Amino acid sequence: MSYADRLQDAIQAKGTPALVGLDPFLDRIPEDFAGVHDPNATVAERASAMGDFLCAVVDVVADRVPAVKPQSAFFEVLGAAGVAQWERVVRHARRAGLIVVGDVKRGDIGSTAAAYAEAFLTGARGVDPETLCDAVTVNPLLGDDSITPFLEACTQASAGIYILVRTSNPGGAQFQLQGQPTLTEHIADAVVAWGEGLIGASGLSSVGAVVGATHPAELASLRARMPRTPLLLPGYGAQGAGAAEVASGFLEGGRGALVNSSRGILYPARDEGEDWRTATSRAVDRMRADLGAVWGGA
Amino acid sequence: MSYADRLQDAIQAKGTPALVGLDPFLDRIPEDFAGVHDPNATVAERASAMGDFLCAVVDVVADRVPAVKPQSAFFEVLGAAGVAQWERVVRHARRAGLIVVGDVKRGDIGSTAAAYAEAFLTGARGVDPETLCDAVTVNPLLGDDSITPFLEACTQASAGIYILVRTSNPGGAQFQLQGQPTLTEHIADAVVAWGEGLIGASGLSSVGAVVGATHPAELASLRARMPRTPLLLPGYGAQGAGAAEVASGFLEGGRGALVNSSRGILYPARDEGEDWRTATSRAVDRMRADLGAVWGGA
Repeated sequence: MSYADRLQDAIQAKGTPALVGLDPFLDRIPEDFAGVHDPNATVAERASAMGDFLCAVVDVVADRVPAVKPQSAFFEVLGAAGVAQWERVVRHARRAGLIVVGDVKRGDIGSTAAAYAEAFLTGARGVDPETLCDAVTVNPLLGDDSITPFLEACTQASAGIYILVRTSNPGGAQFQLQGQPTLTEHIADAVVAWGEGLIGASGLSSVGAVVGATHPAELASLRARMPRTPLLLPGYGAQGAGAAEVASGFLEGGRGALVNSSRGILYPARDEGEDWRTATSRAVDRMRADLGAVWGGA
Repeated sequence: MSYADRLQDAIQAKGTPALVGLDPFLDRIPEDFAGVHDPNATVAERASAMGDFLCAVVDVVADRVPAVKPQSAFFEVLGAAGVAQWERVVRHARRAGLIVVGDVKRGDIGSTAAAYAEAFLTGARGVDPETLCDAVTVNPLLGDDSITPFLEACTQASAGIYILVRTSNPGGAQFQLQGQPTLTEHIADAVVAWGEGLIGASGLSSVGAVVGATHPAELASLRARMPRTPLLLPGYGAQGAGAAEVASGFLEGGRGALVNSSRGILYPARDEGEDWRTATSRAVDRMRADLGAVWGGA
């Protein structure tokens, strides 16, 4: 079954398009995970405590969301010890029945892109397949031949990719809105073309697009421009967008979009003495309810 | 001393702008490194043998080039075990007196870009500083706030970055040449602006640019557009460019450019029974002589 079809089934099964971003800002991890904060801890100990936290987050959210999105940068900051925890967290999430979208934003010339596609989607010889992602985010700046190896990997591994089309950050406009058509529009058209060979039974492609929910008017226009493209919508929550801002991202029946929240779920406001699990659990329920009002799914 | 100044000194000391790219395509690593090719080897054993090869390459080239450029993808393909070898190879190269340019092409929203800058340039608490890079390549698609954390890291750690301005691959034209001015020209102007606060005694900035040597006419024009920007020129050798194609990348006295060769140095043609070290050593000498004809340095 294609990535797009598996994802759509998971969204229906969980009854929400909520995606939990696993962004382990070390300073914000709850104090329970003392190894993260201990000034005398080794890098391996800090990384291990970070992994403990993320696996615990996965346990809290697993029955209520279809997917998680670990952010590679926060693992890489602890070097090889951090990457070992990436593998652990990915494995833990997959075993919990979650779809894993690796937020790696890789992009390079063809021969190198092939290595990245192997690293995250198809797996080198001897690598534990449970440490691979269901999908990854990809940076398209290098064009066609930088994307082809990822398309091949999608076919080979029933995997998916999300190509950066319009990012959620303020600086995204600097280059993405240059030109007429804009760079974003050029990339969106390329995403449609790249995705044509990977359309599943759901009618959606396994080649998706990242479109920031912080730009709702552009989101509506890009949704129309990429009618069979699954969207990954960052910007909800800590970055400022709410349910109203993501509404135009959905196709009929709530199909075709995942809405990401990272900091809002991992580091919610806590009442005096409240356990982080209680606060995170409530944050997930709130996000589900908030999105439920605009989602349109069953 | 700023990255740009250190680099310029190293280029002068070694008498060449040749940069050796460490791209460990596993299938092409010499048969001496049996662990890479053994179908029964574990991932850790394969990674370790890959690291043995790259450290040996560093030993062969260290007295004749100023810098090496490990390509992250080929380490990441072996997961955490591969990243551990990245750290080992970076450390080995730095101890050999080489400048290390990490080819990671990262780019993300500000808070995430800060983690990448920390991962590769400034170092999280407890991380061995010898495993950090002198400079990294950066993807600018996300604009200003995705670059700022790298600029801060350059100041803090006397490090450098090379921003993708015009890539060497055929697909690079798809988006980079869109618009008038082109996306590449917009990025080049931003590189100049980003680099203004990081100009060293050499007159060069520590904010550099990647410009493919496979586009010589564009290279000349971009050289003029970014007069104080150190260039990293991929595309020489296996990708088809020769000395004539890189000539216009140099400033007066051979300043301001590094020319990369990866596959041409690591996997040169070998005579029957010839040791790989002999072939690699000859390939370095040939590259030095070839570039010497156009370089213009002392």
